[in-house]
Amino acid sequence: MAERRIGAGASLSEADVIAALRPLAKTAPARGLMDDAAVWLPPLGRELVLTHDTIAEGIHYLPADDPSDIAWKLVATNLSDLAAKGAMPAGVLLGLTLAGQSEGWIERFAGGLKRVLDEHDTALFGGDTVLAERTVLGCTAIGHVSRGHALSRAGAGAGDRIYVSGTIGDAGLGLAARRGEAASDRFLERRYRLPMPRLAIGQGLRAAGATAAMDVSDGLLIDAKRMALASDLGARIDLARLPLSPAAASRLPAGTAGRLQAATAGDDYELLFAAPPDCHPALVTLCEGEGIRLTEIGALERGAGLSVSGVDGEDVMPVRLGYEHGT
Amino acid sequence: MAERRIGAGASLSEADVIAALRPLAKTAPARGLMDDAAVWLPPLGRELVLTHDTIAEGIHYLPADDPSDIAWKLVATNLSDLAAKGAMPAGVLLGLTLAGQSEGWIERFAGGLKRVLDEHDTALFGGDTVLAERTVLGCTAIGHVSRGHALSRAGAGAGDRIYVSGTIGDAGLGLAARRGEAASDRFLERRYRLPMPRLAIGQGLRAAGATAAMDVSDGLLIDAKRMALASDLGARIDLARLPLSPAAASRLPAGTAGRLQAATAGDDYELLFAAPPDCHPALVTLCEGEGIRLTEIGALERGAGLSVSGVDGEDVMPVRLGYEHGT
Repeated sequence: MAERRIGAGASLSEADVIAALRPLAKTAPARGLMDDAAVWLPPLGRELVLTHDTIAEGIHYLPADDPSDIAWKLVATNLSDLAAKGAMPAGVLLGLTLAGQSEGWIERFAGGLKRVLDEHDTALFGGDTVLAERTVLGCTAIGHVSRGHALSRAGAGAGDRIYVSGTIGDAGLGLAARRGEAASDRFLERRYRLPMPRLAIGQGLRAAGATAAMDVSDGLLIDAKRMALASDLGARIDLARLPLSPAAASRLPAGTAGRLQAATAGDDYELLFAAPPDCHPALVTLCEGEGIRLTEIGALERGAGLSVSGVDGEDVMPVRLGYEHGT
Repeated sequence: MAERRIGAGASLSEADVIAALRPLAKTAPARGLMDDAAVWLPPLGRELVLTHDTIAEGIHYLPADDPSDIAWKLVATNLSDLAAKGAMPAGVLLGLTLAGQSEGWIERFAGGLKRVLDEHDTALFGGDTVLAERTVLGCTAIGHVSRGHALSRAGAGAGDRIYVSGTIGDAGLGLAARRGEAASDRFLERRYRLPMPRLAIGQGLRAAGATAAMDVSDGLLIDAKRMALASDLGARIDLARLPLSPAAASRLPAGTAGRLQAATAGDDYELLFAAPPDCHPALVTLCEGEGIRLTEIGALERGAGLSVSGVDGEDVMPVRLGYEHGT
């Protein structure tokens, strides 16, 4: 792990950061955070799955959030990408640009980091710390999968059903509560603070017959549209089927409007995947085995674009699909 | 490559960034930047070398720098870490936190990225783009090396000589020139803007007998101290031997003071390595074959810490060793 100082006046040195993280770097690849790079022998004949996500204050977490939760979310959002490709996590590299955090902050951050890494059997490989004027936290996660078995957003066929794990919309409501825009709710806020990557489900999807998969980070609708585009198909989503937690259902507006809100809120880190109809029993077995709800929310069809139906079967034309109007 | 929007008012969308980078993502692992993660089959039986470095405006580059040069430096500094471990580069993931850059900026950035990746036969695997209030650029580089052959900072023996590739202190003087603190100099500024990772030398070091290696990023003295510490030895550096370019020699203060300045300036991205004395001919052959100067600048010895001698053989007690006073 390299150390550099940028700017001045920060209350924490890079040496402090590395000292706080070193107890977590117990496996050989990390070289005790004493070298320029990690050295890791990947499992023989496995393909690697590599992802990098950055989280920033104010959106993915709030300045007042517990640093332990921030560390969890930083790693969990990256492991969610591995889950979506069916990979087993191996290690992470962190890029921590810090701005005036205290020693107590980094200790709590290291505590959350230890929890999320231990929970998902993932090693700290290394990274880089920079002291600057704004906090930006990056993470690269490395996992592995049987050769040729990594799922993709592409690969779904016309007629495949679209499924989602867990419940949708909780994190968006949790963020509103944490911002003071709505009453506090322990469950919803936890869903925002501590997303749980669906690794075991992701690892079982290919064998259960799934043809395409991704994680829901920017909003269910935009992500479903992306999966359809990558598979060169159209997608139809039925909002009446959208899986809502009791807490979300009690808080969302009634009818189509509330379901649209949930389906465009993002930050869910659930898995969205496609499979032919006859795979349904295997998918149910997989998700029930993990104690996670499975919901069929639509289908892929010939053509292009996204069509959405509301709770009364009416066609809905959403003004926004999620965090980005791009691909 | 994931896309998220953070904050508002940025003149560039994540979709623009991905569109600019997509032509560079031609190899299979990148999946056209259309998926959650890269999928890559590593070469059989090779160990992976993984590193992550972040560069920030104002230190590693200046706001007025050509975006093409910024992209080069972002990747080159990471490839320099791979070089120091003897690895062949395979691919990079980028974490681009951008703040109000224009479309022209990202086009020039993509141009520099293409140049540095092509020059070093490295693929763009993927990454993440976030629009925020400050620019932070992260890069994870992945390379590979024969199993058990990755060099380390540790491993040097007492009596090993300390060598450095190329010349030291150029980049620090180049930065001063670019900041307007000294007259412009094309060579020195180029050494700051466009570091050249010493990949071929790094890949030949193990066979030539080197016992430890790292790259010089924070300053020759602090980095030599780190190598000695990792090897559980002391280091002696002879400033009279410090390799200076003609441009640097003409600009630095005379005598020990100027050499101390060069040896603590950092940003050199040359290789610092240790080898027993009888390896000297093989090391000369390796470096001459690459057209790069090789200089013996000191030795490792029993004990701990760093001792420095000046141009007249006097003991020197530097007040600072480089960018960080830590490990």
